[in-house]
Amino acid sequence: MVFFVSDHTGVTAEAVGHSLLSQFIELEYQAQTVPFIDTPEKAAELAGRIRKSMPALIVSTLTDQSIRAKLRDCEAPMFDVFDAFSEPLAATLGMAATAASGQIHGMSNSYHARIEAVNFALAVDDGLNPERLGEADIILVGVSRAGKTPVSLYLALQYGKKAANYPLTPDDLGAHTLPPVLLALRQKLRGLTLSAERLSQIRNERLPGSRYASLENCRNEIRAAESMMAASGIPVIDSTRRSVEEIAAMIVHDGTEARS
Amino acid sequence: MVFFVSDHTGVTAEAVGHSLLSQFIELEYQAQTVPFIDTPEKAAELAGRIRKSMPALIVSTLTDQSIRAKLRDCEAPMFDVFDAFSEPLAATLGMAATAASGQIHGMSNSYHARIEAVNFALAVDDGLNPERLGEADIILVGVSRAGKTPVSLYLALQYGKKAANYPLTPDDLGAHTLPPVLLALRQKLRGLTLSAERLSQIRNERLPGSRYASLENCRNEIRAAESMMAASGIPVIDSTRRSVEEIAAMIVHDGTEARS
Repeated sequence: MVFFVSDHTGVTAEAVGHSLLSQFIELEYQAQTVPFIDTPEKAAELAGRIRKSMPALIVSTLTDQSIRAKLRDCEAPMFDVFDAFSEPLAATLGMAATAASGQIHGMSNSYHARIEAVNFALAVDDGLNPERLGEADIILVGVSRAGKTPVSLYLALQYGKKAANYPLTPDDLGAHTLPPVLLALRQKLRGLTLSAERLSQIRNERLPGSRYASLENCRNEIRAAESMMAASGIPVIDSTRRSVEEIAAMIVHDGTEARS
Repeated sequence: MVFFVSDHTGVTAEAVGHSLLSQFIELEYQAQTVPFIDTPEKAAELAGRIRKSMPALIVSTLTDQSIRAKLRDCEAPMFDVFDAFSEPLAATLGMAATAASGQIHGMSNSYHARIEAVNFALAVDDGLNPERLGEADIILVGVSRAGKTPVSLYLALQYGKKAANYPLTPDDLGAHTLPPVLLALRQKLRGLTLSAERLSQIRNERLPGSRYASLENCRNEIRAAESMMAASGIPVIDSTRRSVEEIAAMIVHDGTEARS
């Protein structure tokens, strides 16, 4: 059994642990995430539980040395990020590390900005309240079901970015230029596109057999949307083989691409 | 300058880096996250950029040894998670590590489940479509503005959990038991509460000076909601001093608490 152990939410320990173990292709493992191990008492109790699950392995992000020491009592091999890096980092910086409380684990942007950004993303989702588009940091445009909503919510929750999303409807697509409300905010626009096959598949899950979901209609909509976006010179990301978090990271770090 | 470098989105490198550096309270630093460094060429180019920003420090999650080697050319001290752990982990497991592509970084649950969960959370947000509550994995209940929506979206995006949220309105609160539609799904219910002071502050941002936002009304609503939730025996989390990700981790790992 593999234990991902953290003094905070466990999200980082889990991400580090899964990444590390994914290098061992033949390894099959069961994993359990144990968050909020923030006292020596909780660590001692967990050590007892792990001792009963041997053979076991620990990947952890435990800031406090005394908590790590208690957990180590269980004798399972333990790979802790702070254990590995705190001392060499202290030596490099010429400063002493304090046992911070681990409050910084996980998401990194200001908390209120993120909550406000979520409320904003919901208020302007799917073209709602277009008069508020000017408040946005980023406006995602694309045809219906191109994946704009999850990306805008992730931009809000992870990065605290106020992301609006604006669907290009068949009416918009007939007009040959982006709607004026968008053109006025061109610097904030980011296009999302995807393959017609994938779009048709997604739309068929929603409205099976509809004209809306047909491959031909999807092809036409995507062609029209892409040519509009190209004409306005807005950066476009292809979401066909990318996850929400990859797309969001590209947008935030400006790793957009020209569509080939 | 501190560089958080990743072959994927950079979310994990950034979280690890900020956590590690937060141990050095007196350190003031500027940080830059550089995602998608997934070829030796990109690493070489980045090494050139870092060389121009000395003194610099690198915290990274780079799966591939040859990419790490190129980046190391810049001679800034480099702290890489794979560099530190891959070999000892291989020795412990008695297996050879392959340079996996780093696709597992970041969020860990099945991709489609997460997107479906986001769509579900939006469809049943704020008491919408109560006939779909039975599909939920988790139903968050609490008074208006107790923080249910961001938590349900985070549960969906991070954990792939289908989380509904149901606001207890003044009408519901007058009834002394939870609404029948909720009682039928009692196993899925999780309560959110918070201090009346904090609730009043949040509501005042939305409707300044209103009765809705008044401290007295907030006190009454919270008292009624807490007594209903206690009567039904549902686990309750106090969100006053907790972040969305902390609350979500508590719910997923069942770390709920009785309100003191």
